[in-house]
Amino acid sequence: MKNTIRTDIALEIAQNLSKEELKGVDVIEENYEDNNIIITTVNIKDKQGEEKTGKPKGTYITIESSYMKENEIAKHEEIIKILSSKITTLMDIKKDSVILVVGLGNWNVTPDALGPKVISKVLVTRHISADIPEDIDESVRSVAAFSPGVMGITGMETGEIIQGIVEKIKPDYVIAIDALAAGKTSRINTTIQISDTGVCPGSGVGNNRMELSKKTLGVPVIAMGVPTVVDAATLVNDTLDLILETLINTATKSTALYQLLANMTDDDKYELIYRILTPDSGNLFVTPKEVDSIIDRLTNIIANAINISLHPGISKSDINKYI
Amino acid sequence: MKNTIRTDIALEIAQNLSKEELKGVDVIEENYEDNNIIITTVNIKDKQGEEKTGKPKGTYITIESSYMKENEIAKHEEIIKILSSKITTLMDIKKDSVILVVGLGNWNVTPDALGPKVISKVLVTRHISADIPEDIDESVRSVAAFSPGVMGITGMETGEIIQGIVEKIKPDYVIAIDALAAGKTSRINTTIQISDTGVCPGSGVGNNRMELSKKTLGVPVIAMGVPTVVDAATLVNDTLDLILETLINTATKSTALYQLLANMTDDDKYELIYRILTPDSGNLFVTPKEVDSIIDRLTNIIANAINISLHPGISKSDINKYI
Amino acid sequence: MKNTIRTDIALEIAQNLSKEELKGVDVIEENYEDNNIIITTVNIKDKQGEEKTGKPKGTYITIESSYMKENEIAKHEEIIKILSSKITTLMDIKKDSVILVVGLGNWNVTPDALGPKVISKVLVTRHISADIPEDIDESVRSVAAFSPGVMGITGMETGEIIQGIVEKIKPDYVIAIDALAAGKTSRINTTIQISDTGVCPGSGVGNNRMELSKKTLGVPVIAMGVPTVVDAATLVNDTLDLILETLINTATKSTALYQLLANMTDDDKYELIYRILTPDSGNLFVTPKEVDSIIDRLTNIIANAINISLHPGISKSDINKYI
Amino acid sequence: MKNTIRTDIALEIAQNLSKEELKGVDVIEENYEDNNIIITTVNIKDKQGEEKTGKPKGTYITIESSYMKENEIAKHEEIIKILSSKITTLMDIKKDSVILVVGLGNWNVTPDALGPKVISKVLVTRHISADIPEDIDESVRSVAAFSPGVMGITGMETGEIIQGIVEKIKPDYVIAIDALAAGKTSRINTTIQISDTGVCPGSGVGNNRMELSKKTLGVPVIAMGVPTVVDAATLVNDTLDLILETLINTATKSTALYQLLANMTDDDKYELIYRILTPDSGNLFVTPKEVDSIIDRLTNIIANAINISLHPGISKSDINKYI
Repeated sequence: MKNTIRTDIALEIAQNLSKEELKGVDVIEENYEDNNIIITTVNIKDKQGEEKTGKPKGTYITIESSYMKENEIAKHEEIIKILSSKITTLMDIKKDSVILVVGLGNWNVTPDALGPKVISKVLVTRHISADIPEDIDESVRSVAAFSPGVMGITGMETGEIIQGIVEKIKPDYVIAIDALAAGKTSRINTTIQISDTGVCPGSGVGNNRMELSKKTLGVPVIAMGVPTVVDAATLVNDTLDLILETLINTATKSTALYQLLANMTDDDKYELIYRILTPDSGNLFVTPKEVDSIIDRLTNIIANAINISLHPGISKSDINKYI
Repeated sequence: MKNTIRTDIALEIAQNLSKEELKGVDVIEENYEDNNIIITTVNIKDKQGEEKTGKPKGTYITIESSYMKENEIAKHEEIIKILSSKITTLMDIKKDSVILVVGLGNWNVTPDALGPKVISKVLVTRHISADIPEDIDESVRSVAAFSPGVMGITGMETGEIIQGIVEKIKPDYVIAIDALAAGKTSRINTTIQISDTGVCPGSGVGNNRMELSKKTLGVPVIAMGVPTVVDAATLVNDTLDLILETLINTATKSTALYQLLANMTDDDKYELIYRILTPDSGNLFVTPKEVDSIIDRLTNIIANAINISLHPGISKSDINKYI
Repeated sequence: MKNTIRTDIALEIAQNLSKEELKGVDVIEENYEDNNIIITTVNIKDKQGEEKTGKPKGTYITIESSYMKENEIAKHEEIIKILSSKITTLMDIKKDSVILVVGLGNWNVTPDALGPKVISKVLVTRHISADIPEDIDESVRSVAAFSPGVMGITGMETGEIIQGIVEKIKPDYVIAIDALAAGKTSRINTTIQISDTGVCPGSGVGNNRMELSKKTLGVPVIAMGVPTVVDAATLVNDTLDLILETLINTATKSTALYQLLANMTDDDKYELIYRILTPDSGNLFVTPKEVDSIIDRLTNIIANAINISLHPGISKSDINKYI
Repeated sequence: MKNTIRTDIALEIAQNLSKEELKGVDVIEENYEDNNIIITTVNIKDKQGEEKTGKPKGTYITIESSYMKENEIAKHEEIIKILSSKITTLMDIKKDSVILVVGLGNWNVTPDALGPKVISKVLVTRHISADIPEDIDESVRSVAAFSPGVMGITGMETGEIIQGIVEKIKPDYVIAIDALAAGKTSRINTTIQISDTGVCPGSGVGNNRMELSKKTLGVPVIAMGVPTVVDAATLVNDTLDLILETLINTATKSTALYQLLANMTDDDKYELIYRILTPDSGNLFVTPKEVDSIIDRLTNIIANAINISLHPGISKSDINKYI
């Protein structure tokens, strides 16, 4: 099988398509904070859109901001507000909806622990919903939360575990959080994607597994994710592109190697690099030094946005009164 | 509801029964290492035994040794050997049996984290069983492992989660590991109980929940547990007993208070203490200073015993070859 | 050596003294939040006060509130404000003062990890003080922070390590944070004591060690601490007192045992219990179930109060600009 | 300042020198396990050797084996034996020597946590050396151990802290463990270097700081380290070299770009890549997916080797008897 640049970010795919190819795909952009927060909604509308992008029909919203990875609490508040409003637009939450939040990924591997970490900050209420008085009842949804782990730890497909639980508690929605793969180094920890089309667990740092979607689980699946690493080949590929861009302005432009590299498709170039890097570095990934703090920041942003959209106007200490 | 001394240890209950009351219950004791490792098998044989003990019919094996909590690696090897042989006697494992190991308890609370910690050391193989060659096939069982968390974290009953997964992967056995409650301070971290009757999660440090047993899960449930804490009232009760024993040899024996306390039943005394301790200390538990290291030792003993009984003659590095 | 009730809380000692014995000791009480936050300043003024209390001359301020251990963020803000103002009254911080914050205790034992956890949240600035611009310079003190560990981990006396560092960086003040011992179960995690007299590391859960004070370090030592555990004997002792109080209203009052127990001094009673509990339970301590969350709350309160008193008007993100 | 390939591995430097340049440097190689464990001793003998290598005079022993990062316990035993014998050759330990083991690096950043993790497994004895009976006395050295943290956490230079402690406890040797920088991606977690020349803390993932050596501390410093990451530029550089090697056999060999790249010095190429990668990726590092497990394996190897060389024939449970 050929190794190609792996990306879960619909926007990245759309950006690589020509106007002609983008038939069947709508792309709408909004800006906040002097272009420091960019929201792009990619709408894959039909069969043609699916074919061109290789992604299922649906809405993919990307929030891009380098503030996410910085220690910028005020900007995080802004991003939380935007993210929670976008979650709300993708869901049709009723007063008595039951929502299961699932944190995908391996809690032992820092950049893959985003999902499980979010779960530890999600406000769960399903076990106390009978005890919540009518006056705040309107603002509290029945929420359960869960981290299934990864196959190497449990011996089970993540999808099997989630199917088992979904069949038991019959939620109206599943929200799945995962670390994603991106095709650009600059995306690491600066992009949140949210979509209404489901997710394939482990696409960020592992292998693709059973899809989590309405098709496999029987209920709509909202997927939220952040690219937290890129693989070593993506980094080299990005750098090579930058080298080529640099060289473009020099006399070497006409040389055979330049021609060779410049004329290779992205996927061919990635395949070349991937093959060169294997086996010694095939298992390497690229991550920022302060990955521990950054994952904590992203965890706060995503967990707070989920809590606000599912329980508007309710804080943890409000809930504590009924436990 | 009256508060009574809570214990999950069948042996403790049996020890408090008279010979007459022990009809319907067999108790067999074995000794190792100069009485430093004591194995007792309590067999609750019929309805009468169930009524007298308040525990379901079945076999309860207790391994008692203060070595467990000490840094005594050679003695641990001995205990692992004994424990794994006892696991084997309670199960009827076939070549192609599928076993689901479940680690009950809250990973955020050190003395309740025994179950989840054992899971992280259990050798899981279910996801690779297709890849294991015939020559070692005989010695490798298909094992999955899983920690469901507690209701306050997930919003779901532990039993619901496990039912969901059991229905999906259809194991032949469930092995459930949990922290237990004991009625004697001296039992903390010195007793492993293993039984073929199932378990009520959270009985060690939380409230009783849905039973995990053949009745609720449809497959036999082997329960393994260690009392890792006692509640504050149990400690006071134990001490009061010791004070009374001391006083028994003194002139105060004839006083009214002595008579009062000496004539109270254990449960009445516990109830008195419990009511006096509440609310200020009702939520307190008693644990040794070095609880972190002790839980790690117990984790090693239990996980190794499970691995040896399920995969006889196979080490982790043998398995790694097929991953 | 006789075992007596160990307490580091000057207020507890003062409360057990008669008016006559309290010559040489001033006690002033303030109340906030309808008596839910009580601040008591114990001033040990002279030799006589030292003898009666067994504590060195100086000021001991106790903040008592059960809010500390609850998830009550608004009340925590209140406590932080009070605590930081009290820190300020005990110190004479100059614009160019250098402060070394020291977190005592064992990071591997949850209730003893308070000191090290606070250190991880203290805003350190000593390494960037040269880079801070004049306009915010006024509000930023030069702060270093450090957790020396415990003797069983390092093989060194905590005091030796701190002496070595103090001689090297020559701070104007040392602030030492530690878990303390208390003589009442109800004090666990509900009292912060701050004093200008130094501290003996490890008095909370270990043995007494070399004193940290102006005498041993050459610079004033502000000590801050919270009782996070009591030993098993203290719990039993407290309960026995409550039992006696209950019995006082009954006919048993005249019995010999009642007379015996009621007429024992506190220390004799503790000694009796301690001897009865040893060796089986001598190493046990009593702690609330949710100790992990409570230690996190106390960490936030203390670290924020320190940051506010040392860097008034400055937040972490202000500081980040100069790193 | 020009950015050049940073390496702490003397062997890497020696391998890049010509025979002529290697005057003043001895290189001796030993092989074990069919070339799967390679030990190379680089001896920088004089001023000339120092100038050519840029490293201080002394002995640098490198143990190279990809077994280190694998789950190969039997091979680890072999490596521990070799490493402990090499530690012994670099030190002149007397019966009554005092040794201070220092774990450099940031415990919050997984690949930089090697030093602090080793410290947690070193057998410390200095606090009990008075209590050790004569019969095992011969085999037990007085060992203290300590992790100073990093400047961003403490506000202090690591060197200042260690100087302070060394002046206090006056050890005969300091052993410093750190994560190192390497110039080849393939070296990540496959090489242990040990030398008698000291170390600059933080050279692996941070900036160079005050040297720890006989010159700055007054006692000999044995440095042990493992390259646990490479920076992103090193990865790209390595890959580009591999691409060039691939292209060398093709027609493009004659092109201008090939000529350009092939004729650049390694340092110039690294500088080019580094500049292209900055600022977006300047802060990125490259690490294997399973870095958490690998650091644990390296920790075990190094801590065990230290324990065996300092306390020959003594186990932790032997020592526990005297605590």
